[in-house]
Amino acid sequence: MPLYTDLADELADAIRRGALRPGERLPSVRQARASRQVSAATVFQAYDLLESRGMIESRPRSGFFVRAARAASAAEPQAAPASPEATEVSIGDLVMQVLGSTRDRDVVPLGSAFPSPRLFPLRELARCGARALRALDPDRLLEDLSAGNERLRHQIARRQALAGIAVDPDEIVITHGAMEALDLSLRLLTRPGDIVAVESPTFYAALQALERHGLRAVELPTDPRDGVDPDALAQVLERHRVAACWLMPNFQNPLGSLMPEERKRALVALLARHGVPLIEDDVYGELHHGSRRPLPAKAFDAAGEVLHCTSFSKCLAPGYRVGWVAAGRHAPGLRRLKTLTSLATAVPSQLAIAEYLAQGGFDRHLRGLRRQLAAQQARMHALVEAHFPVGTRLARPQGGYFLWVELPEGGDSLALQARAAALGISLAPGALFSASGGDRRLRRGLRLNFGHAPGDARIEPALAALGRLVAAGGTPGT
Amino acid sequence: MPLYTDLADELADAIRRGALRPGERLPSVRQARASRQVSAATVFQAYDLLESRGMIESRPRSGFFVRAARAASAAEPQAAPASPEATEVSIGDLVMQVLGSTRDRDVVPLGSAFPSPRLFPLRELARCGARALRALDPDRLLEDLSAGNERLRHQIARRQALAGIAVDPDEIVITHGAMEALDLSLRLLTRPGDIVAVESPTFYAALQALERHGLRAVELPTDPRDGVDPDALAQVLERHRVAACWLMPNFQNPLGSLMPEERKRALVALLARHGVPLIEDDVYGELHHGSRRPLPAKAFDAAGEVLHCTSFSKCLAPGYRVGWVAAGRHAPGLRRLKTLTSLATAVPSQLAIAEYLAQGGFDRHLRGLRRQLAAQQARMHALVEAHFPVGTRLARPQGGYFLWVELPEGGDSLALQARAAALGISLAPGALFSASGGDRRLRRGLRLNFGHAPGDARIEPALAALGRLVAAGGTPGT
Repeated sequence: MPLYTDLADELADAIRRGALRPGERLPSVRQARASRQVSAATVFQAYDLLESRGMIESRPRSGFFVRAARAASAAEPQAAPASPEATEVSIGDLVMQVLGSTRDRDVVPLGSAFPSPRLFPLRELARCGARALRALDPDRLLEDLSAGNERLRHQIARRQALAGIAVDPDEIVITHGAMEALDLSLRLLTRPGDIVAVESPTFYAALQALERHGLRAVELPTDPRDGVDPDALAQVLERHRVAACWLMPNFQNPLGSLMPEERKRALVALLARHGVPLIEDDVYGELHHGSRRPLPAKAFDAAGEVLHCTSFSKCLAPGYRVGWVAAGRHAPGLRRLKTLTSLATAVPSQLAIAEYLAQGGFDRHLRGLRRQLAAQQARMHALVEAHFPVGTRLARPQGGYFLWVELPEGGDSLALQARAAALGISLAPGALFSASGGDRRLRRGLRLNFGHAPGDARIEPALAALGRLVAAGGTPGT
Repeated sequence: MPLYTDLADELADAIRRGALRPGERLPSVRQARASRQVSAATVFQAYDLLESRGMIESRPRSGFFVRAARAASAAEPQAAPASPEATEVSIGDLVMQVLGSTRDRDVVPLGSAFPSPRLFPLRELARCGARALRALDPDRLLEDLSAGNERLRHQIARRQALAGIAVDPDEIVITHGAMEALDLSLRLLTRPGDIVAVESPTFYAALQALERHGLRAVELPTDPRDGVDPDALAQVLERHRVAACWLMPNFQNPLGSLMPEERKRALVALLARHGVPLIEDDVYGELHHGSRRPLPAKAFDAAGEVLHCTSFSKCLAPGYRVGWVAAGRHAPGLRRLKTLTSLATAVPSQLAIAEYLAQGGFDRHLRGLRRQLAAQQARMHALVEAHFPVGTRLARPQGGYFLWVELPEGGDSLALQARAAALGISLAPGALFSASGGDRRLRRGLRLNFGHAPGDARIEPALAALGRLVAAGGTPGT
């Protein structure tokens, strides 16, 4: 990692903690050089990065300042109280409707679950795929069944090791996207009627999977900044017989929350004491906006009880449908279930990605992607602040591509969604993300996707239009 | 289709019916030319084809004769009685063990479920994939979600129409192989505890899927030649409340049986009367050894109650994991379930196949593949006859790549499998193919795969070794 991102992260932290306040001047380049023992170029790059994130601004002939706009900026949302009861899961047609709109390129994709495919090195992947398929030994098509391509599993294990996540290639099962990884994990660990603890709000696909398998959800209150509180989980574990937890510690969908490392440690230890396995959905872990990939809970797992599920769909290869689970001591059962359920993962996709990883362009691509997402987040944050009425709360995700917004008291994101759809703008209302339909506060929440195509000129007018709808009371409260 | 295959099929039928008996001389080329109004080349090609299938032989300076070996050849197996009771499904580690051996290239793959990847145009597919990915519009990655690539669905519908199967592109959902097509269909139509009617013996993956979803199986006696008897099914429908049928009318796995058209018609009419949907597994339909693709039951379905499931895995693109279901009136539900379960099918695989179909080489490839499989079947048939003891019964599949063998009275294919495995030979014992473990007769059955790599020199010694094991009483009966 280059030094400049370290410096930028350190300063960003200082700004977040309030050590550097809005309007305050940052150290001059000369001061920073001297105090940090870095080059002037490094300082400039760090300041550029912070500026692109909207955290500081340069004033001609005066230097760099913490952005004043931050001072008046929207507050962060707070954790909504979640129902402590186990709930039968049932989500309606809303998911299909919101998902359906992502298939229409004329709709402004603020409600999309996916980053724009234009953010990814599709040409280079295609070249890698062509090269690997030309060299394919036909017999490998059968030998790579079930666990997946050996070369790919080794590439994954190597990358994880470099990020501080010890994973054995033999515990990895390549899956048809993270969705299959999560679904297989859930099926392996539960029987119909079992209780699964999930975040509230949580990714609707998790709720759908619970519904499909006849499971009950216990919803854990989830802080938009720090995620699930292990103490709250401890109470749930005392009260319910929980078969598994399904959590997203890194850049949770929809909140964007990031569990601090000490929470992850405590979570893993708590679950180990109760003998409850963790299904960890880490599909956004690579999309941190800072300089270091946050560790997943898996990194603190000595007992092999964490099933770490992720994919290349959000960080490299959308549509290729390649995910994996590092299943710890559950790997043999997982491999068996994969074989019997879907036999194998598509070989052309696996080969293309293995070849791409081997040639070594992934980190360069990721650096560019993270910078782009951070800049787009800053811009969307600023647009919401500019156009939405006072009282709107805004999360400050440190990764991923979702911005969680809470409308002012009386707002109704479901009503807003219907009106926005009529204007050709999609958004994901809070009600999508709860088994119980959500409390009053969740129904004021909405998820905006800032992983749109670079330079998409429709984003600003769309946010302005949304702001007008909200301000005009177009969202009668419940 | 060229005329010579018509002539060959006609003669093959005459031989099967006994109109031309073993040892009898076929019409001379001059006679055939005159009576059929075809060219000498056509007659020669037809006779060559029949010879390659082991049905006739040329004797120098005498002409062509129906093979004498047929006279002494093994009888065909008969339908085993199936339990009329609904059975809880549970298959053990046997499936994993047999499947596992297909991953080892040193094992002679007589037990494999797959044809050799060496039978397929992998290079050409790779070129098509590379071309299509280069031309990919990134936005299509999202637009093709759930139902699958539009171009591919149209290509499929066009091909089906040419084969006499009326299918609407909009009722097609592209899936992760036929396994997902079948699994989604089953889940759409059933609830845990429901009864599903299946063939006996049947494909173990069907039994596994039933087990996974907590379903009960009613097993239908299945004739190795003609498949399920609609009258037997009618009795089952009177007795049980059946939620769905899962059948394989074309080249059933493991028997290789082919339901005659009148049976398919009667089947569809019967199910329509009872309002029971049919999940039709047609993955081997394209692998007929004669000149015409047998129609699936879907072709007789006016009510939209047949969910026709198939794939490219066995006829074009192993490992690509592209299948589909033409789901009739169940298409909207199927599409929704697909979206919520696995989101989408791998795009590189879909594009490669769509491009391959568009460029028009598929039929040429299939003609060659069918010829090769027919020749390999004839050879394996002859080898079993030559090496297995008297009393062995042998199916005569008209398509696919499985040869069903029934050991003489007292034989035990499970014991044979264990001994063969020690010699590095895999085979699929009858017990794999029944929810109830099978009756005495099924436990004498075994499935041999003749879809091995062309010129695999290990096949003959392997069959000789198996024959010695059987003859030496290496398989104490039960």
